[in-house]
Amino acid sequence: MAGLFITFEGGEGAGKTTVLQSISEQLLNKGYDIVTTREPGGIRIAERIRNIILTPEHEEMDGRTEALLYAAARRQHLVEKILPALDENKIVLCDRFIDSSLAYQGYARGLGIEDVWQMNQFAIQDAMPDLTLFFDIEPEAGLKRIAANKDRERNRLDLEVLSFHQKVYEAYHLLVKKFPERIKVIQANQPLQRVEEETMSQIIAFLKNKSFY
Amino acid sequence: MAGLFITFEGGEGAGKTTVLQSISEQLLNKGYDIVTTREPGGIRIAERIRNIILTPEHEEMDGRTEALLYAAARRQHLVEKILPALDENKIVLCDRFIDSSLAYQGYARGLGIEDVWQMNQFAIQDAMPDLTLFFDIEPEAGLKRIAANKDRERNRLDLEVLSFHQKVYEAYHLLVKKFPERIKVIQANQPLQRVEEETMSQIIAFLKNKSFY
Repeated sequence: MAGLFITFEGGEGAGKTTVLQSISEQLLNKGYDIVTTREPGGIRIAERIRNIILTPEHEEMDGRTEALLYAAARRQHLVEKILPALDENKIVLCDRFIDSSLAYQGYARGLGIEDVWQMNQFAIQDAMPDLTLFFDIEPEAGLKRIAANKDRERNRLDLEVLSFHQKVYEAYHLLVKKFPERIKVIQANQPLQRVEEETMSQIIAFLKNKSFY
Repeated sequence: MAGLFITFEGGEGAGKTTVLQSISEQLLNKGYDIVTTREPGGIRIAERIRNIILTPEHEEMDGRTEALLYAAARRQHLVEKILPALDENKIVLCDRFIDSSLAYQGYARGLGIEDVWQMNQFAIQDAMPDLTLFFDIEPEAGLKRIAANKDRERNRLDLEVLSFHQKVYEAYHLLVKKFPERIKVIQANQPLQRVEEETMSQIIAFLKNKSFY
């Protein structure tokens, strides 16, 4: 992998999707070759898998089935979209990746971060992000942001209770401690412009460090 | 698990599906409480996953994506159908289980039997079959049987070349060596009635051994 692989992580309503778009435009304006994507990334097999996961009627879905389906969609998206872009020396900005599975399935659903990590290694084969930005906002505040956005479609995960989102939040903090080199924290509970500035300065510092700047 | 979990394995055209039905009827007549099933077992989530795997148009499907999808379908089928039946002391006869993944994805697709085994442990959590019957027939003979059956629908795996099916066959023999206690070989290249008799006597011997007879 010759390019740089940067992932955006966080709970619901952390603003990461909005910030990712704006960062991408700023980096493009600076002349960088950027690919923005999100799991499942518009890859047809991954979209079909995602559709099974998020169908609200699938209440019988077992937590391990869910984790395996996310890993399957992740694999296909990685192979079809992320790895080819990295091979072409591009900077890939990806909305969610393995840390989402560690937080949501590994910790919040109680499957175990270590087990979900091991299983995901089968899917990604060491293709870990070079940098991960965790958008840090208390779940209450994040969910309030989502509730204010009437256009947002609700899926099976949005319907989880607050305690589930609190566990996800706890999990991300565990991951920050576990991977201090890779994961950087962005204070997301501030005006969007400040969040963007903080994100941009983290990314620029990283690019300089990697001699990409 | 209080019941008995018996799986039927083998390449295409080995006759295992036909034999499974007949064995099930014979055991029912003897008064056993039998559940016959096959992956994906009519479980709606598993059927939807299977549908993604077998769609002939999905030529871009990565081998690891395929293996993860099979494991996801296996998990859901196990939790919804197999484990509840075992809890009720039933004998479960299942057409294909983990050995199919080890043979098809682990060996024939070259992902590695060990890696596919590890990943599947996440899905099954030690719920291994008590007995596995491998229906042993050379792939050429098996495929000839399939070709003679005009009613059989062709899927993405049937379209694989002969060398793929030969690898699958090789793999099953490796698995028989690896798990000699669990996997018993049935000579499948003989008249169906003989195959049924051999299968039945293997199962009866096993039931006696487990004090189920």
